[in-house]
Amino acid sequence: MAKKIAVLTSGGDAPGMNAAIRAVVRKTIFDGHEAYGVRYGYRGLAEGDIFRMEAADVSNLSARGGTVLYTARYPEFANEEGQLKAIEQLKRHDIDGLVVIGGDGSYRGALALARHGFLTVGIPGTIDNDIPGTDFTLGFDTACNTAIDALDKLRDTAKSHMRTFIVEVMGRNAGDIALWSGIGCGADQIIIPEKDFNMDDVIAQIDHGRERGKMHTMIVLAEGVMPAHEFAEAMSQYGEYHIRAVVIGHIQRGGAPSAKDRLLATAFGHRAVEMIEEGKSGICMGIRDNKLIYTPIEEALNSKGTDSNFNEYLYNLNNETSVWS
Amino acid sequence: MAKKIAVLTSGGDAPGMNAAIRAVVRKTIFDGHEAYGVRYGYRGLAEGDIFRMEAADVSNLSARGGTVLYTARYPEFANEEGQLKAIEQLKRHDIDGLVVIGGDGSYRGALALARHGFLTVGIPGTIDNDIPGTDFTLGFDTACNTAIDALDKLRDTAKSHMRTFIVEVMGRNAGDIALWSGIGCGADQIIIPEKDFNMDDVIAQIDHGRERGKMHTMIVLAEGVMPAHEFAEAMSQYGEYHIRAVVIGHIQRGGAPSAKDRLLATAFGHRAVEMIEEGKSGICMGIRDNKLIYTPIEEALNSKGTDSNFNEYLYNLNNETSVWS
Amino acid sequence: MAKKIAVLTSGGDAPGMNAAIRAVVRKTIFDGHEAYGVRYGYRGLAEGDIFRMEAADVSNLSARGGTVLYTARYPEFANEEGQLKAIEQLKRHDIDGLVVIGGDGSYRGALALARHGFLTVGIPGTIDNDIPGTDFTLGFDTACNTAIDALDKLRDTAKSHMRTFIVEVMGRNAGDIALWSGIGCGADQIIIPEKDFNMDDVIAQIDHGRERGKMHTMIVLAEGVMPAHEFAEAMSQYGEYHIRAVVIGHIQRGGAPSAKDRLLATAFGHRAVEMIEEGKSGICMGIRDNKLIYTPIEEALNSKGTDSNFNEYLYNLNNETSVWS
Amino acid sequence: MAKKIAVLTSGGDAPGMNAAIRAVVRKTIFDGHEAYGVRYGYRGLAEGDIFRMEAADVSNLSARGGTVLYTARYPEFANEEGQLKAIEQLKRHDIDGLVVIGGDGSYRGALALARHGFLTVGIPGTIDNDIPGTDFTLGFDTACNTAIDALDKLRDTAKSHMRTFIVEVMGRNAGDIALWSGIGCGADQIIIPEKDFNMDDVIAQIDHGRERGKMHTMIVLAEGVMPAHEFAEAMSQYGEYHIRAVVIGHIQRGGAPSAKDRLLATAFGHRAVEMIEEGKSGICMGIRDNKLIYTPIEEALNSKGTDSNFNEYLYNLNNETSVWS
Repeated sequence: MAKKIAVLTSGGDAPGMNAAIRAVVRKTIFDGHEAYGVRYGYRGLAEGDIFRMEAADVSNLSARGGTVLYTARYPEFANEEGQLKAIEQLKRHDIDGLVVIGGDGSYRGALALARHGFLTVGIPGTIDNDIPGTDFTLGFDTACNTAIDALDKLRDTAKSHMRTFIVEVMGRNAGDIALWSGIGCGADQIIIPEKDFNMDDVIAQIDHGRERGKMHTMIVLAEGVMPAHEFAEAMSQYGEYHIRAVVIGHIQRGGAPSAKDRLLATAFGHRAVEMIEEGKSGICMGIRDNKLIYTPIEEALNSKGTDSNFNEYLYNLNNETSVWS
Repeated sequence: MAKKIAVLTSGGDAPGMNAAIRAVVRKTIFDGHEAYGVRYGYRGLAEGDIFRMEAADVSNLSARGGTVLYTARYPEFANEEGQLKAIEQLKRHDIDGLVVIGGDGSYRGALALARHGFLTVGIPGTIDNDIPGTDFTLGFDTACNTAIDALDKLRDTAKSHMRTFIVEVMGRNAGDIALWSGIGCGADQIIIPEKDFNMDDVIAQIDHGRERGKMHTMIVLAEGVMPAHEFAEAMSQYGEYHIRAVVIGHIQRGGAPSAKDRLLATAFGHRAVEMIEEGKSGICMGIRDNKLIYTPIEEALNSKGTDSNFNEYLYNLNNETSVWS
Repeated sequence: MAKKIAVLTSGGDAPGMNAAIRAVVRKTIFDGHEAYGVRYGYRGLAEGDIFRMEAADVSNLSARGGTVLYTARYPEFANEEGQLKAIEQLKRHDIDGLVVIGGDGSYRGALALARHGFLTVGIPGTIDNDIPGTDFTLGFDTACNTAIDALDKLRDTAKSHMRTFIVEVMGRNAGDIALWSGIGCGADQIIIPEKDFNMDDVIAQIDHGRERGKMHTMIVLAEGVMPAHEFAEAMSQYGEYHIRAVVIGHIQRGGAPSAKDRLLATAFGHRAVEMIEEGKSGICMGIRDNKLIYTPIEEALNSKGTDSNFNEYLYNLNNETSVWS
Repeated sequence: MAKKIAVLTSGGDAPGMNAAIRAVVRKTIFDGHEAYGVRYGYRGLAEGDIFRMEAADVSNLSARGGTVLYTARYPEFANEEGQLKAIEQLKRHDIDGLVVIGGDGSYRGALALARHGFLTVGIPGTIDNDIPGTDFTLGFDTACNTAIDALDKLRDTAKSHMRTFIVEVMGRNAGDIALWSGIGCGADQIIIPEKDFNMDDVIAQIDHGRERGKMHTMIVLAEGVMPAHEFAEAMSQYGEYHIRAVVIGHIQRGGAPSAKDRLLATAFGHRAVEMIEEGKSGICMGIRDNKLIYTPIEEALNSKGTDSNFNEYLYNLNNETSVWS
């Protein structure tokens, strides 16, 4: 019998969310079911902002950043009252299953719905790559490419003026964007939340490079460590390093998704529908060791988001390839 | 008889500077002369950091941002002492003419050299488009394209979250980048130094749009007006507009130059060499009404950098095409 | 009294068409009139595919390539019968004026409508830059940037393999894209329809460069001259030049418009509405000497599309800056 | 004792080769050894074109496409005579180990050197993703992103004109680029060497879509199947589908590498040096299940390059998300 499967996006937007929406809608219809969209995340769900989506409604969506279903904060969803409103609306619209695309806050909402007996599957969407249950989140690869494009541009100026650029990239708890984009641009130093840094060492390495003729310096800093201007101020105590503090900022969240994010989004969305068809609930999709997996959300939330050993490896990888020995 | 023609870059780097260096070197050699580069702007000139450049040395340079000749601040060049050092070095290296690529500060240096009797020609290089004697400066078109690319990305998030983005673009004295990129991205409001704004009107227009279903707002702000976070703070007095203040920043100065900047750079560099061959000095290159021109630097410095009537037109153009009437 | 103003796109699509549609619709509404769209160019006009457009319908349109109004071939519009059908439909929908965005074929249709007494204004939209009455057409700047981006990528391979790349860019009658993108990428040779070339000279210049250590060669060829593979074949008679023939092709017609194309499109669309309001008809918009102008379509069609003196200048400019003397 | 480690690139160039060169040079120096570059692949090796490289020589190399060490065909290297010349040169320069970046032809050369007792390690560099011993090759991710960018642009025109675009992407033996870019752009059909296709089915699906209002069609075709114009001709037997055949071509091989390719290249280059330090020879680097691995080249060459099960999955994934059911 035909099922009704709905999809919503929640939390910060990320490139690839639209591609995942498209895949959920298309696969649902391909399998003979009906697809529905929910606007404004959990707020829209509680308010019943649910509407039918056809194959044509998601046409060309893979290429677009942001989310056509919008996203919104809705702290009330942490309370049972908000959750029950959502359950009521899902029943009123005869929805059989729900795909939630978002971060770990969104996962907690999905878990609550699953505990109320509603079929719910999560897809990890956030640029920070800090959602448990997956090696890579939707939007991370695109954000790294955007950060690298910015870093390549900034290096033009850093080099021309022989300056030190402190470039703050996104990542509150995880240094993944900093590590990938820092290695990508050949940063002199990468400063991340997972790893203490010592300003004396930073300065020593810069001085070491200057002695060997390296006249400009690129330092990539994850926002979770401290703001770029604070880091710049701390550095400036050590001497004249012609510092500029730059924040790449929100552009990391937008733009057409990369090849990898589009593929991942399509696979996640497609497989999430299959999960619902198989009656699985309270789980989240992921890619682990290059294979599509799913994990109980509860288990995922209790684990760590990032493989710190891998980040430790990347940290050393950069050190050993950026120093002018 | 073969001449020796040198080129330097001074002031802030801008996309197109390398393409102009290439054109100066290639045209010089094409005409049977010898080409020389000067490193680190006027500082390098005063210190005699002058070296021979061959055709191969500028190979593939058109595509690259920044300046391979580096640039540096050298306030001492405002004094005759610094200028005389430079003249001495130019004589020591038997240089016959000098092309200076930079902003109006660089023009003042070029004028000083010309007054000391040395053949000097200026090329306008800065992203701000605020150098007199030309409709367009090198780097301006590239900076607008970079700003628009960033604005397109930011709109993804602004729209998905139904937010108001205050986006600060470069332009201390001139609103040109703000106007071009603001029109390009269909900004709701463009705030520029040349035009007073009234926060009541800004708010009224946003409210007007919201009543008509426009749920997100993009405001493009030239840095010369005030920092984005100050503007955001002023707006927040009027109510909840879900504001994010974003600074696009230094990426506007880097990157591969646009088609227009590469063409302009090649034409400026090529023509500057012809000017020196013709014995013209103390002049600056420009494009006016789509034609290559030159102007005495003194005359240019005494005129205004920007055609304010044109900016007034662009300002109204945006207002009349962005409002949801 | 409120007017009804319609807009259609015709001929090949070009980046900036959507931005021009947006400007026509927004300015029309801003001035208190009603805006209408016509789908599928003149065919849709003859079939009455005319619909009301609101401000929200053109939201975010500046950033998008192609044309949301679609475009189609309709040879029947060359005959009076087809034209009268269109007039009939325009009357039936009470349309007061029409803006036609397209190439010179589209202009002929617009002229026919004007001669039947209907208020019609043309906007030049084509990447080839070969429409009379303007220095620049919508899409040309974007196409040059796309071609340059491709040429920069191709040079990576040409250089790594020490090959000769013959790169065919668009331009049936005009060499403008070839000239701008060729200068932009520092092509060794630019081959255009406006200028005879001699293969002996081409080979001589390449040999000259090889003797001086230049191991790879980039030749930019306008499609109007001959296909790239024919040029390659002709070259291969002279010896082993490790030739690859590459056609950049249709990507030159798509993509997000550049800053310049967005500005031009907005200004053209906005001013075209003013022309209709002023009762002007049978005219086409243009930019000449960096100023917005309009020309009677009849006069424009009888003139040349391209300023051949300017192209002659660009041709020499490239020769004098690309040779390794 | 300090070792001398050399690096060369061979076969078709691929984005990421320069980043791998940089990593080899930097890691070698970091560990207290001396780094050497070999120009023109195996030809240069046999001719002794070997030179010392310092940390500064690979500065900013991560961002650049192509290979600064050049690459060349050298069929003579299949014979022992060519190999012995290389061994002789390696001895003459006291080189202790060699890193070869290239495709499976390059691997065969590396294997031959290892069999002659010389420490040799391979790194997989080719955009086609068809080298055994790894899930991903250097350049593949960048090529997919380039192809997707082209496909997004082509869709603008396909949609505006309601046409069918047959777009040929690279991939002689492997459909990987076709699959990834096809899924990324939401292609209606993806035609790959690994999977027979039936033109009747292709046409049936297009007709199916047209009946549901889908007016344009994007078909992504791997070059290994047949040229785009042949496919177009075959389609045109079935009726009028307004077909355009487009070849994306060599741009897929160039350009700044993506984040993923830069990271992979840095890790491969860094680890290859460690392999040589550990005395491993005749092996090739890879990433499998998201982990760095190495495989004996002989074993790799006897296995298949592509996991056909995974491509089968991707093939179905696209079918089930692109059909307008």
